[in-house]
Amino acid sequence: MKILVINAGSSSLKYQLIDMDNEQVMAKGLCERIGIEGSNLQHTNVAKDEKTKIEKPMKDHGDAIQMVIDALVDEKIGVIKSMDEIGAVGHRVVHGGEEFAGSCVITEAVMKALEKCTPLAPLHNPPNIIGIKACQKIMPNTPMVGVFDTAFHQTMPPKAYMYALPYEYYKNYGIRKYGFHGTSHKYVSQKAAEFLGKPAEDLKIVTCHLGNGSSITAVDGGKCIDTSMGFTPLDGVPMGTRTGSMDPAVVTYLINQKGMSAKDVDALMNKESGVSGVSGVSSDFRDLSAAAKEGNDRAQLALDMFSYQVKKDIGAYAAAMGGVDAVVFTAGVGENDAATRSAVVEGLDFMGIKINEDKNAARGTVDISADDATVKTLVIPTNEELMIAIDTKRLVENK
Amino acid sequence: MKILVINAGSSSLKYQLIDMDNEQVMAKGLCERIGIEGSNLQHTNVAKDEKTKIEKPMKDHGDAIQMVIDALVDEKIGVIKSMDEIGAVGHRVVHGGEEFAGSCVITEAVMKALEKCTPLAPLHNPPNIIGIKACQKIMPNTPMVGVFDTAFHQTMPPKAYMYALPYEYYKNYGIRKYGFHGTSHKYVSQKAAEFLGKPAEDLKIVTCHLGNGSSITAVDGGKCIDTSMGFTPLDGVPMGTRTGSMDPAVVTYLINQKGMSAKDVDALMNKESGVSGVSGVSSDFRDLSAAAKEGNDRAQLALDMFSYQVKKDIGAYAAAMGGVDAVVFTAGVGENDAATRSAVVEGLDFMGIKINEDKNAARGTVDISADDATVKTLVIPTNEELMIAIDTKRLVENK
Repeated sequence: MKILVINAGSSSLKYQLIDMDNEQVMAKGLCERIGIEGSNLQHTNVAKDEKTKIEKPMKDHGDAIQMVIDALVDEKIGVIKSMDEIGAVGHRVVHGGEEFAGSCVITEAVMKALEKCTPLAPLHNPPNIIGIKACQKIMPNTPMVGVFDTAFHQTMPPKAYMYALPYEYYKNYGIRKYGFHGTSHKYVSQKAAEFLGKPAEDLKIVTCHLGNGSSITAVDGGKCIDTSMGFTPLDGVPMGTRTGSMDPAVVTYLINQKGMSAKDVDALMNKESGVSGVSGVSSDFRDLSAAAKEGNDRAQLALDMFSYQVKKDIGAYAAAMGGVDAVVFTAGVGENDAATRSAVVEGLDFMGIKINEDKNAARGTVDISADDATVKTLVIPTNEELMIAIDTKRLVENK
Repeated sequence: MKILVINAGSSSLKYQLIDMDNEQVMAKGLCERIGIEGSNLQHTNVAKDEKTKIEKPMKDHGDAIQMVIDALVDEKIGVIKSMDEIGAVGHRVVHGGEEFAGSCVITEAVMKALEKCTPLAPLHNPPNIIGIKACQKIMPNTPMVGVFDTAFHQTMPPKAYMYALPYEYYKNYGIRKYGFHGTSHKYVSQKAAEFLGKPAEDLKIVTCHLGNGSSITAVDGGKCIDTSMGFTPLDGVPMGTRTGSMDPAVVTYLINQKGMSAKDVDALMNKESGVSGVSGVSSDFRDLSAAAKEGNDRAQLALDMFSYQVKKDIGAYAAAMGGVDAVVFTAGVGENDAATRSAVVEGLDFMGIKINEDKNAARGTVDISADDATVKTLVIPTNEELMIAIDTKRLVENK
């Protein structure tokens, strides 16, 4: 079965066509500037390793989906003969609220439930919904599946997901920890179990998704029991431009004492903070490392703050699970930044976590644990699109 | 030397007179409703175990201090013959900002530095300052010492105390983690080292000050390297009526989406939340335990959330220190609530923390560790007034 994976943003749409017989990507690409002047499609035929950029007006996501289909079936740059070869479409959806504890086949009822989650993710869910509707219009007979960033975290117990606000704020407004990056945490925790040759049910794993956005998750017996992102993707460790966790009284202080508006503070915390705000250099860890090596103290501080918080989360989640069998690093920084991995696990040998620096220099899926470590430390490249395709295939076949 | 310890609030003033030859409290008491109708002094002569309540108008803190002195030298209820027997006064001050990394003898320069810290604790520092000034007027020849709730935490490294806001917010506004309860954390960590018969320099200790306000501190080699309270005492674990840590985006959500003012949210987070808000029962852990035993799920949830966050902090701080030699419980809940202690350490045997439930039922300073625990778990009653007196004596003698 060939599965089309769609990730729709407000003015963009990413896609991959994956052949599930061998889990290989056949084609992938990106529509940019949808509804804005200068719309374009960047398409890659993977087998031919051939990239094409097509500039053409796309007034909406419907136009974009149509261009994607056209590219996929195109004689020259395409990879399939007809749209009918697409067995199903898997849609990434950011927020599934408490409605969705797993991926699911999209029906009318699901679309209604999705709309219900929109107030929780007013920036992200609407384009996801528009993307689904556009797809349904163009491919009315193709089954669609929604895969949620939050779903994997729905197994958290109340003691982990509740904030200590008055209970009504949870009941009436849905204010609780949801967690994000769930598809990634699920994928790498499953891959880790496979890699270790043990059933996921028998493993306590801390997965560290470290990228421009970062989150840490405690996966006990294959299920998420806690995660560092919260009500929104702002919470947890410091990120590229996001503060991460912070005394919530700082927000009211900035408003009451410094005259900022709540919207200003929101923008400040999400877009001007994180390692970028601390360093004044960049949100990119490669730039920070380079600056730190040249003696930039604030770049070093930003790196130190980041690895320190990840280290503390590993300790906290080991405590939450009553132990840990494996620590997994994934995503841009987690997969590629050996120095950050090294800084994160430094000093954790008291709990059996210790890496071998030669192994740590390698790339790809690799066990970087020291020989005398009792906890495995692994690097596992994440693949959210493949995870979406796997869930989509499973659900469509079971329907 | 006899030392008078003063803790001045906006309309209250607590005091203890401590004889430092034997570290015994000679008298203690409380002035209430200063500047309000119904002012009264409650005074205890400890040796006689005799309590007296005097109702008399106190228009300001000067009147209150005068009444305290009068009670202390009173023929019937007093414990000293003359004010001259008071060798020094130790004042509790909530916020020392970055100005004070330790207690210090109060001078003109110190008073100026204290005023500088006021914007960081607009509710707490002004009454502390008024208390000092009132004392200075009545006892102009008695040396005074300021002891700060924040001072012990000033040894935190930047990676622990910085928030990932743009750096200017630290430089210009002083927004960083300060930590509180420092006098208590310092006292019990020192007592723990004494109890274990080891130099503090050789110990990694996690101190859990659990009361109506709660904070957890990592004390490495006698120095604080991290603590759970932050810019304000709102941060960290859930408390009696305070949320503790929470995604800061919840604050902006409540303002932007629910139309609350920042002041409303401040009051909500500080006064209506915590275990009280979650349970809807009480901020008192004894009430929560009773309600939970009777089947109140939300009371149980509040207790679970609390012990879970403390557990995670112990794990996080062990990771931060690269190990842990002792965990110390103190303050109202920490000293008296065996069930909470038990819930906190449950599952931490993977890192050598394990308690003996028979020992856990005891009171006072006690080692409650299981025989096969490699980490000591101790209960040590805190004594902030004695710590203030010890610091005061040391500084006055060294002057």
